Amino acid sequence: MDNMLELLKRVERGEMTPEDALLKLKKQPFEDLGYANIDHHRQLRHGIPEVIYGEGKTAEQISGIVSAMRERGYECVLITRLTPEKASAVNAETPITYEPQSRIGIFGKIPTPTSAGVIAVCAAGTSDLPVAEEAAIVAEALGSRVERLYDVGVAGLHRLLHRLDTIMAARVVIAVAGMEGALATVIGGLVSAPVIAVPTSVGYGANFQGLSALLSMLNSCAGNVSVVNIDNGFGAGYLASLINNIGE
Amino acid sequence: MDNMLELLKRVERGEMTPEDALLKLKKQPFEDLGYANIDHHRQLRHGIPEVIYGEGKTAEQISGIVSAMRERGYECVLITRLTPEKASAVNAETPITYEPQSRIGIFGKIPTPTSAGVIAVCAAGTSDLPVAEEAAIVAEALGSRVERLYDVGVAGLHRLLHRLDTIMAARVVIAVAGMEGALATVIGGLVSAPVIAVPTSVGYGANFQGLSALLSMLNSCAGNVSVVNIDNGFGAGYLASLINNIGE
Amino acid sequence: MDNMLELLKRVERGEMTPEDALLKLKKQPFEDLGYANIDHHRQLRHGIPEVIYGEGKTAEQISGIVSAMRERGYECVLITRLTPEKASAVNAETPITYEPQSRIGIFGKIPTPTSAGVIAVCAAGTSDLPVAEEAAIVAEALGSRVERLYDVGVAGLHRLLHRLDTIMAARVVIAVAGMEGALATVIGGLVSAPVIAVPTSVGYGANFQGLSALLSMLNSCAGNVSVVNIDNGFGAGYLASLINNIGE
Amino acid sequence: MDNMLELLKRVERGEMTPEDALLKLKKQPFEDLGYANIDHHRQLRHGIPEVIYGEGKTAEQISGIVSAMRERGYECVLITRLTPEKASAVNAETPITYEPQSRIGIFGKIPTPTSAGVIAVCAAGTSDLPVAEEAAIVAEALGSRVERLYDVGVAGLHRLLHRLDTIMAARVVIAVAGMEGALATVIGGLVSAPVIAVPTSVGYGANFQGLSALLSMLNSCAGNVSVVNIDNGFGAGYLASLINNIGE
Amino acid sequence: MDNMLELLKRVERGEMTPEDALLKLKKQPFEDLGYANIDHHRQLRHGIPEVIYGEGKTAEQISGIVSAMRERGYECVLITRLTPEKASAVNAETPITYEPQSRIGIFGKIPTPTSAGVIAVCAAGTSDLPVAEEAAIVAEALGSRVERLYDVGVAGLHRLLHRLDTIMAARVVIAVAGMEGALATVIGGLVSAPVIAVPTSVGYGANFQGLSALLSMLNSCAGNVSVVNIDNGFGAGYLASLINNIGE
Amino acid sequence: MDNMLELLKRVERGEMTPEDALLKLKKQPFEDLGYANIDHHRQLRHGIPEVIYGEGKTAEQISGIVSAMRERGYECVLITRLTPEKASAVNAETPITYEPQSRIGIFGKIPTPTSAGVIAVCAAGTSDLPVAEEAAIVAEALGSRVERLYDVGVAGLHRLLHRLDTIMAARVVIAVAGMEGALATVIGGLVSAPVIAVPTSVGYGANFQGLSALLSMLNSCAGNVSVVNIDNGFGAGYLASLINNIGE
Amino acid sequence: MDNMLELLKRVERGEMTPEDALLKLKKQPFEDLGYANIDHHRQLRHGIPEVIYGEGKTAEQISGIVSAMRERGYECVLITRLTPEKASAVNAETPITYEPQSRIGIFGKIPTPTSAGVIAVCAAGTSDLPVAEEAAIVAEALGSRVERLYDVGVAGLHRLLHRLDTIMAARVVIAVAGMEGALATVIGGLVSAPVIAVPTSVGYGANFQGLSALLSMLNSCAGNVSVVNIDNGFGAGYLASLINNIGE
Amino acid sequence: MDNMLELLKRVERGEMTPEDALLKLKKQPFEDLGYANIDHHRQLRHGIPEVIYGEGKTAEQISGIVSAMRERGYECVLITRLTPEKASAVNAETPITYEPQSRIGIFGKIPTPTSAGVIAVCAAGTSDLPVAEEAAIVAEALGSRVERLYDVGVAGLHRLLHRLDTIMAARVVIAVAGMEGALATVIGGLVSAPVIAVPTSVGYGANFQGLSALLSMLNSCAGNVSVVNIDNGFGAGYLASLINNIGE
Repeated sequence: MDNMLELLKRVERGEMTPEDALLKLKKQPFEDLGYANIDHHRQLRHGIPEVIYGEGKTAEQISGIVSAMRERGYECVLITRLTPEKASAVNAETPITYEPQSRIGIFGKIPTPTSAGVIAVCAAGTSDLPVAEEAAIVAEALGSRVERLYDVGVAGLHRLLHRLDTIMAARVVIAVAGMEGALATVIGGLVSAPVIAVPTSVGYGANFQGLSALLSMLNSCAGNVSVVNIDNGFGAGYLASLINNIGE
Repeated sequence: MDNMLELLKRVERGEMTPEDALLKLKKQPFEDLGYANIDHHRQLRHGIPEVIYGEGKTAEQISGIVSAMRERGYECVLITRLTPEKASAVNAETPITYEPQSRIGIFGKIPTPTSAGVIAVCAAGTSDLPVAEEAAIVAEALGSRVERLYDVGVAGLHRLLHRLDTIMAARVVIAVAGMEGALATVIGGLVSAPVIAVPTSVGYGANFQGLSALLSMLNSCAGNVSVVNIDNGFGAGYLASLINNIGE
Repeated sequence: MDNMLELLKRVERGEMTPEDALLKLKKQPFEDLGYANIDHHRQLRHGIPEVIYGEGKTAEQISGIVSAMRERGYECVLITRLTPEKASAVNAETPITYEPQSRIGIFGKIPTPTSAGVIAVCAAGTSDLPVAEEAAIVAEALGSRVERLYDVGVAGLHRLLHRLDTIMAARVVIAVAGMEGALATVIGGLVSAPVIAVPTSVGYGANFQGLSALLSMLNSCAGNVSVVNIDNGFGAGYLASLINNIGE
Repeated sequence: MDNMLELLKRVERGEMTPEDALLKLKKQPFEDLGYANIDHHRQLRHGIPEVIYGEGKTAEQISGIVSAMRERGYECVLITRLTPEKASAVNAETPITYEPQSRIGIFGKIPTPTSAGVIAVCAAGTSDLPVAEEAAIVAEALGSRVERLYDVGVAGLHRLLHRLDTIMAARVVIAVAGMEGALATVIGGLVSAPVIAVPTSVGYGANFQGLSALLSMLNSCAGNVSVVNIDNGFGAGYLASLINNIGE
Repeated sequence: MDNMLELLKRVERGEMTPEDALLKLKKQPFEDLGYANIDHHRQLRHGIPEVIYGEGKTAEQISGIVSAMRERGYECVLITRLTPEKASAVNAETPITYEPQSRIGIFGKIPTPTSAGVIAVCAAGTSDLPVAEEAAIVAEALGSRVERLYDVGVAGLHRLLHRLDTIMAARVVIAVAGMEGALATVIGGLVSAPVIAVPTSVGYGANFQGLSALLSMLNSCAGNVSVVNIDNGFGAGYLASLINNIGE
Repeated sequence: MDNMLELLKRVERGEMTPEDALLKLKKQPFEDLGYANIDHHRQLRHGIPEVIYGEGKTAEQISGIVSAMRERGYECVLITRLTPEKASAVNAETPITYEPQSRIGIFGKIPTPTSAGVIAVCAAGTSDLPVAEEAAIVAEALGSRVERLYDVGVAGLHRLLHRLDTIMAARVVIAVAGMEGALATVIGGLVSAPVIAVPTSVGYGANFQGLSALLSMLNSCAGNVSVVNIDNGFGAGYLASLINNIGE
Repeated sequence: MDNMLELLKRVERGEMTPEDALLKLKKQPFEDLGYANIDHHRQLRHGIPEVIYGEGKTAEQISGIVSAMRERGYECVLITRLTPEKASAVNAETPITYEPQSRIGIFGKIPTPTSAGVIAVCAAGTSDLPVAEEAAIVAEALGSRVERLYDVGVAGLHRLLHRLDTIMAARVVIAVAGMEGALATVIGGLVSAPVIAVPTSVGYGANFQGLSALLSMLNSCAGNVSVVNIDNGFGAGYLASLINNIGE
Repeated sequence: MDNMLELLKRVERGEMTPEDALLKLKKQPFEDLGYANIDHHRQLRHGIPEVIYGEGKTAEQISGIVSAMRERGYECVLITRLTPEKASAVNAETPITYEPQSRIGIFGKIPTPTSAGVIAVCAAGTSDLPVAEEAAIVAEALGSRVERLYDVGVAGLHRLLHRLDTIMAARVVIAVAGMEGALATVIGGLVSAPVIAVPTSVGYGANFQGLSALLSMLNSCAGNVSVVNIDNGFGAGYLASLINNIGE
């Protein structure tokens, strides 16, 4: 509000006409109120990677964005949902490393995570791994230490229980599952940490492209479960890292 | 086929005209071919209860059916989906006992079950009990011994595991659950017996009147799970008893 | 864990026979085995309220549970989704206070929240208040300080922006909205804290009992938004409090 | 109506027999009765482009229609939903220019728009541009001046607010958005002009091919928002231009 | 904008201190900043009625709001979706007139509409009248002249065609229909004016509470049709009046 | 067309001005062109009953319509979907007989059907009878002879086959079924006559208010099956009677 | 039935032993019992074409079936849903003619239709022609005279009304439409003949692969409309021909 | 519990420290309770084939798993949902035989089934055979004798009834059907054995990828029917074999 008082004083002192003041007030109503920081996605501190959503962008567009970031001094950039073909094309322009399972391209190098808390990324089946890996790599890139617990679907409960220590020690748990999506509820009942459930489109028939897992997770009888969109590994990793860093 | 040969022989012997034989063949085409037993719902042996679906029938209609059965010598009749009001009205005409939780009315007395195998009826939460009890009582009425395991929802996994011996000893398991319906899959993974999953309409919001549990159960990653309609306790108890009696 | 180690030490010191220790372990099998936190709903420390889900339970059942808890020394118990009628009936047996808007009954007294972080509970419209209040009271009961921002729906964006400071200062934000559910995404873009979105069934027509807000929130283009079930104020408050307490 | 009155006058003057007049009326019953304007799509005045829906038509069919129009004197014809392949094939027969983003082919030249009012076409994200451009070009072709505001999705609210002047000055606003579709409601709350919302199929998972944005827009809590079909840029541009020209 | 410029001029003239001006600006931050029209629902000029959405509000709340408005000088207030019971209760506190068909309560008196253009409100069947009347009265209250064309469903096409002159003379058409919702498309093809389609929940079975009419209208093959929510008569009347007033 | 020629001749003879003729042509464009018979629902010959759709109409409205028809000489009027309460209220004004099962009220007397062909109305279960009876009575009222085959659901196939002669002798078959709706397909395969399938909302759970029977019938692998709306007994009876009367 | 009576008479006359008669009856149980006509698809009289559903069958399978039919003396065989590729492959084995628009292959020659009544096949748009042509050719092949009325969608109502005489003269009408499917209702209101509505999957977005047209047609407010599956031209043509031949 | 007492006694005797005992208790809570056998899918006895779900696994992954199994002594391994391409690639590494219809690859040799009971696998149409064969081969591989009854769809009921003896003699019946899925209910009514219904995605239009058959089967009015996921031949065969082996 200081700026505004200053402006009014300039009007009082005759240094600015009322008309010019009105225009200024009208043109910058929100910026003047201190909202510069609402664009947090882009204003990350040096060393923290930037994330580009690769789907629906051409290789040329991606290369262009990465180049522009490199010039502005970004040391690490992630590109999610990047097909192998696009990755090759981008790589021809700008050197990136490519993780085929998670379909993530990485410009620069992901710094070693140093968070106090650990995020446990649990995946029910082999087919859920692309989504789980996307979550894990995004979380690591944002500074979180990650434990991977794969192939722990509830139809073989002992595999999950076998790693109960790891799950119970985590500050945040990501539960990735398709088909009936029961993993989220079972883990929600076993731990007291927040559980971010990621339904996947893995399955067939009455799965309806992930609807069954989505509804299952939304209806979880465990109180510590919330849900992101089907196959949204990025969102889960991003959100888990936000939560993991609370209090640090 | 004997009847038919007899009929043809009567034609041969001139005891029946071809026209009369044709009429008889035409009037009872299926029964005469030995299909009398296709009406199995009604042809149960003495001592085995008959089951009436009470929903959509008036108290008068139900009383009438029970009276007719009593006259034909039935010793035990079950009426499912019977509201307390209708139960009172029926009881004024024909003495029945009424189980309020399962909403089952019983004329006569259910004989003590004597099956070799046991059916485990598992229910996730308190609100699932009406459906679970319907399944249990129907199965008992059809001669099966039943073990009830209630309040064993997967968000408190230890409660389920605590009774694992009972579940693993059952010849058939009925898994009754609403909300996310994960119980069916978890049990399916724990036992090698057939599991009949009953989704219930318990829940709210994205439950969509049982759709979430239904889809969850249909997509179970356990191979020994099949599903009946939402809230269909009767079907589960009936089918479980059929399976339980195989080989006896 | 201390209790269990203590018990084992008493066995070691000969102060307790193995048989008595086994009996004690067996009676409380999971808590004593260190999985106390599996059953976290019930094992809250002194002074932290217990929460009972009131829907589908009779007034008698609720009174019974509250009485049992009172006897075991609980100082505060919350009952959610309690109708005014049931609240009166419970109150006749056990003195409770009743919050009609959130439909929460309270036995004892909610202790004053002392958390370092603050949870901002934002609600789009007047009709969303029951769900928002449920979330707010549950979070407060679990020890979190709460800021309420009601009637901040995005069709009147200035009302939301007017309180931007409060929202941006929160450690966790709960966004409660029905109809088109846009509030979650707009807030998600304004803050960098985790946002728990609660779709409500407020609306009509193509709202389909909350489906529109649910899908809208699941598809949020903001990366820090996760979603709980339609009208699930309890879950949002519970989960927000878990996150708010991380690192404390 | 003039033609018909003229015909009746010719009958009155004895220049035409009633029988011939009847035949003429019968052969063109509706046009002659003054309903010529019900066929408005085809009877546009000279200089105003005709629009062909290209999807589901072969390149040969399109070429044929364009040729026929050229012969009838049309100076400008638009072909919407034209793939690059078809555009090449059409171009080999009839010279057209092709806008790859909006997938519109143009025979002749779009005249410079001269409308008093301006239509603001707002698009949430880069992937929504094909639909937005289709709307913009159609509106321009029908004579409306258009302001494009792209990449103004509500997760980065400042970008939208930054251009508030432009939006508020528009006579009609078109809001194009996929995913959660919140843009329509936010704009609806900011302006008092009619807002035509176009949900797009941009998104994945619980987007269900545009259903989430569609439902979100239909449930908008802003009273000045109406909705067209998913990805229907043509309809939005056409309707906006109709509204923009009211009173001119 | 005049008020704000006036305020700045008073500062310039030394008639108001910058601090007082700041305080005044801060207390009414958005209206004074020229965004009065953001809050257009509430800031209507003298003589133009205010509209309250009555559903989900108690009679007491409604009475309170109307009283407050009366004190602030509003001469006419509409309350939509007002049940007869609530209307009686409100009337006991504040005198209103009540239109039972449209379920609208009116405080004060709707001024006689004077718009140059006319809005044609067409309804397919008798059961659609409540929604149609809501649209018509809202449009009239906002100053638009309205022509009602009721019982013009397309299964009796001659009734619609009989009134073609009226429809074709309208500046905006509102098409209200349930069941198969074909009315919107038929009218859309007959006129060149914008058509606002309002699906209603009238029907049964595969109507699915208005879904059939909604989808039908969204898929209209007429290019001048846009759609509002099921049963949203208010929105249609409000939006139609906005469009009707363009250029005036 | 005669009227129109006459009109033109009057213009020729100077008995009517061209302007008046134009007005007349414009005002009655469709009627004058010979479309009087498009209103066939209302123009039924003497002795053929008129049908009123009772749902959504008050008893007063129904009484009024019946009275008006009586005055115009109608000898028989049917009122469908009439609740017992409304029937009593109507009866107090205008004497009607009431069929509680089909919920049809009858003013006057249905004439004895005399059609050459017979319509077989088949219903799967007892709960489907209201819909089946509505179809049967409507068909009879429109002059068709009807055979009723009730309780012939396919789970007891012998009951259906037992009456195969009747079904195969029918000129049109109406198949009324809820739940899985299999009756339509089984009958479609047994007969070569047209089968009109009526899904009913009878069922629960995954029935989704008749959706399962509806989809089942639409997907019938029998080529002679078409479908009307859920619970639309009227439509089935009306359409069957139309077909039954072809060639008579 | 003659054969069977003959058989019984031969038994009576001693020309056949009861045992041989039983064997004969048992080997062809249903045909001999007079149910031969349940297999009506295959038992069509000489000169009437047989129809093969080509989708999901390989070219080899189709060739094989056609060859077998040719050998059994069929003079005309239709193959529906035949892709151009399969048609070429079939043609290499068995000479057929191929209709690319309807995707029907014809072995032999369709006899000239001679039915007294005419079937009017109406299609809303150009994209609906494949389905309409399938219906038309199937109806012709089964002996019905067919009138085609294409491009008569209700957004250009005059085109439909222009051909009203033809539609009103038809004994059965087939209404083929995608998008909003309004054509069926408009025609249903114009004629008193049975209308078979065929929704097509033509459209995009909220069309949901034909769902909008399907629901629209099922909810038709015209009483003489029934519906077949989406894109089911064959079923409509087959059923229309059955109805058209009633009474002949 | 013996182990636990032993452990406590060792603590008492000083043979184990309390800390070590605590760790042991915590690490093996579930294993110690006898859960070794929960992994029944993998612990099948020698001679019983192992089943691999081939979908979503690369040829390399499958080859690797088969090789590993071969080394561990498995004599027969089934790979389901194996495309011909993958089968060739696997075969190049590890010799398998491939069943193209069921898409099953077999390493080793399926032993001759010897079960007392027989499973009847019924399929409605030719297009359902892949799913039916998957069920049949899986059941045979697990030791069950199987009778195949193909092309017994209910639109040609006599084909099904012709083989009634076989169906009625089966201990378990699998009913595979797409489109309207009526086969399951008809068979359910004919036999008293358990019926496992498998909806298939065969069909088009309102089939919605198997939804119609799925809902139809879930709503079966026969009490002995339960349902597995759409196209889940494996599950049906596996479960049927479990049931078939009960009591052996």
